[in-house]
Amino acid sequence: MVSKPQTPASPSPEPRSPEPRSSDVIEVSLGDRSYPIEVGTGGLGSIGDRIGERLGDVSHALVIVDEAVVECWGEAVEASLGRAGVRHDRIVIPSGESSKSIQQLANVWRAMLEAGADRRSVVIAVGGGVAGDLAGFGAATFARGIRLVQVPTTLLSMVDSSVGGKTGINLPDAKNMVGAFWQPSWVAIDTETLSSLPDREFLSGLAEVIKYGVIDDARFFAWLEENAGKLVDREPDPLREAIRRSCESKARVVGEDERETSGRRAILNYGHTFAHALEATAGYGTLLHGEAVAIGMQMAARLAIDLRLCEDELLVRQTALLRAVGLPIVYPNAVSDEMLPVMCRDKKVEHGKLRFILPTEIGSVRLVGDVDESDVRRAIEQTREA
Amino acid sequence: MVSKPQTPASPSPEPRSPEPRSSDVIEVSLGDRSYPIEVGTGGLGSIGDRIGERLGDVSHALVIVDEAVVECWGEAVEASLGRAGVRHDRIVIPSGESSKSIQQLANVWRAMLEAGADRRSVVIAVGGGVAGDLAGFGAATFARGIRLVQVPTTLLSMVDSSVGGKTGINLPDAKNMVGAFWQPSWVAIDTETLSSLPDREFLSGLAEVIKYGVIDDARFFAWLEENAGKLVDREPDPLREAIRRSCESKARVVGEDERETSGRRAILNYGHTFAHALEATAGYGTLLHGEAVAIGMQMAARLAIDLRLCEDELLVRQTALLRAVGLPIVYPNAVSDEMLPVMCRDKKVEHGKLRFILPTEIGSVRLVGDVDESDVRRAIEQTREA
Repeated sequence: MVSKPQTPASPSPEPRSPEPRSSDVIEVSLGDRSYPIEVGTGGLGSIGDRIGERLGDVSHALVIVDEAVVECWGEAVEASLGRAGVRHDRIVIPSGESSKSIQQLANVWRAMLEAGADRRSVVIAVGGGVAGDLAGFGAATFARGIRLVQVPTTLLSMVDSSVGGKTGINLPDAKNMVGAFWQPSWVAIDTETLSSLPDREFLSGLAEVIKYGVIDDARFFAWLEENAGKLVDREPDPLREAIRRSCESKARVVGEDERETSGRRAILNYGHTFAHALEATAGYGTLLHGEAVAIGMQMAARLAIDLRLCEDELLVRQTALLRAVGLPIVYPNAVSDEMLPVMCRDKKVEHGKLRFILPTEIGSVRLVGDVDESDVRRAIEQTREA
Repeated sequence: MVSKPQTPASPSPEPRSPEPRSSDVIEVSLGDRSYPIEVGTGGLGSIGDRIGERLGDVSHALVIVDEAVVECWGEAVEASLGRAGVRHDRIVIPSGESSKSIQQLANVWRAMLEAGADRRSVVIAVGGGVAGDLAGFGAATFARGIRLVQVPTTLLSMVDSSVGGKTGINLPDAKNMVGAFWQPSWVAIDTETLSSLPDREFLSGLAEVIKYGVIDDARFFAWLEENAGKLVDREPDPLREAIRRSCESKARVVGEDERETSGRRAILNYGHTFAHALEATAGYGTLLHGEAVAIGMQMAARLAIDLRLCEDELLVRQTALLRAVGLPIVYPNAVSDEMLPVMCRDKKVEHGKLRFILPTEIGSVRLVGDVDESDVRRAIEQTREA
């Protein structure tokens, strides 16, 4: 699985690769585990030059890359490392959720060993959530933890999984059941990598972007309402803005509750208890994660209205925004009899009680425990045909 | 691998299990990861009663136990949990270093899932270093980390692996190559469990005890010289004293350098670079770990004398003490040509430089880098026949 070790090119006599044309930096504040998220356009080709500034001494990098982006982005990262004189090896992982398996984790560990990785090595994860979660868990556990750089190349992983330190794999029928909290040392986002992303996956990522508006930032939600069309067209400036503001929300929440102990971090799960049940019962892969989140947010908003936690207007605006970007707002195949048992098994359930993150107004949510099963059922059924 | 779920017995109407007849408590100071090490005699049967005091709310325990001690100690722990009304499941792992494998880790993860473990569950590791390292890594990674109680039943694991948070497994030809720093919530040592330990394994544990005298505590070393005979006879009071003082040294060092970043924690590796090479070249299993450490400390002391870091007297006293408890002080089969390549691959080597923890006097060591290969060779050869 390891490609041939590449001897470092002697530092290039050509001028240094261009700095990203523009970029913003968001700091995730976690004491000695703090790190910067850089949101830029065109920065991928200078990662090698900048990794030293960000991480200090880097003698060896393991580029763990999703097979789908080896040619378009993995090789650019490697070329950049080569120009900067950083020795590097490549570990390719197959695309798709099935790579978050014990078998692939074992392959990654063995490939790291084969590449001669040691405590000073750095893992650079290039790809979407699958690559980031698997490579991140490899970094968290090899030699009891080595440094990690996340280079997300999907919108979903840019605004969600690459930030916050959740890494891991699935067990059979148990998504993300084993893993580690392992913060990256640097998250390097280059919006140009989104050019290779299929439309449906791009839109799926927008669901998580909209989520941040609902749970944390009413002004961002209003901005999204105004800029929905530009985002769908992937205009660089609005796109960078949307990613930056999403990452700011996530960084703030993670900074307040790194290991999901105070309950604060749970607000990121808005729509997700429904979404996980939708994904599981629809058969993994039928719905993309973001599509399931969009539908799940609709269910959660309906549940909140039923429980008189918020006004109808929230659902009206959420529906309109999801519709404006082309995300699903109903799911005719949702079956509450199938979804409820899955929701009860969800690892976010404690002591068997159904708990939900529900909105009180745009920009604000709360954790609601002890929800009646009949209310959950009604919210699911209303979202089958709304 | 999971035994049938056991329904909690209704809290026993009989009097509570006896408190340990006597015990000392040592605190490992690591901020919010601090925990007590309890060194007692006869406390195993009351673990269930005391786990609530130590950990707070415990709804479910996973007893991960070495097959060799299921009957003598595992069942006592389970009975105690049953009396206290704590729901529990048993996961048995085969004895021996080969259980620190990806395959066994996968089995443990699956068994935890099958047992319905969740974030509130607690892993209780019962056995020696293999059980503690494997179960500890399972605890570190299941649901991204659940609580862990170490119940070591070998002298080696009582004074070494159960304290300090190093968990993990081996990769082929790479010992402890993957794992996590995951501190237990409680280390419950009951010296009575040592009654089931074969002599050779007991003595192997004494090598690490003696190590603490050399690296950290001259008064303890002198105490060991006076009490060697009583320790070999496993007299309870001196035994508890030796374990307590060893754990105090380890707790202090770990408190100063939890993740082996400042170099301070490396002092615990006195004798170990030689020992790992001895174990690897002798074929794993030929020498017990403690036996290899005893011989490794002899090699390290010789190297220190050669480098004029300490007086001959240190080696004289160390040799006499190791001999007094019946540990090996020479190893006729040591081959420097085989050991040196292994030492260069050791993951404690950084940037290919040979580094050693060497004594300057009894109770004090220092890290010495850039040691000449020829000096290492001489130290090995002198210890073949001393």
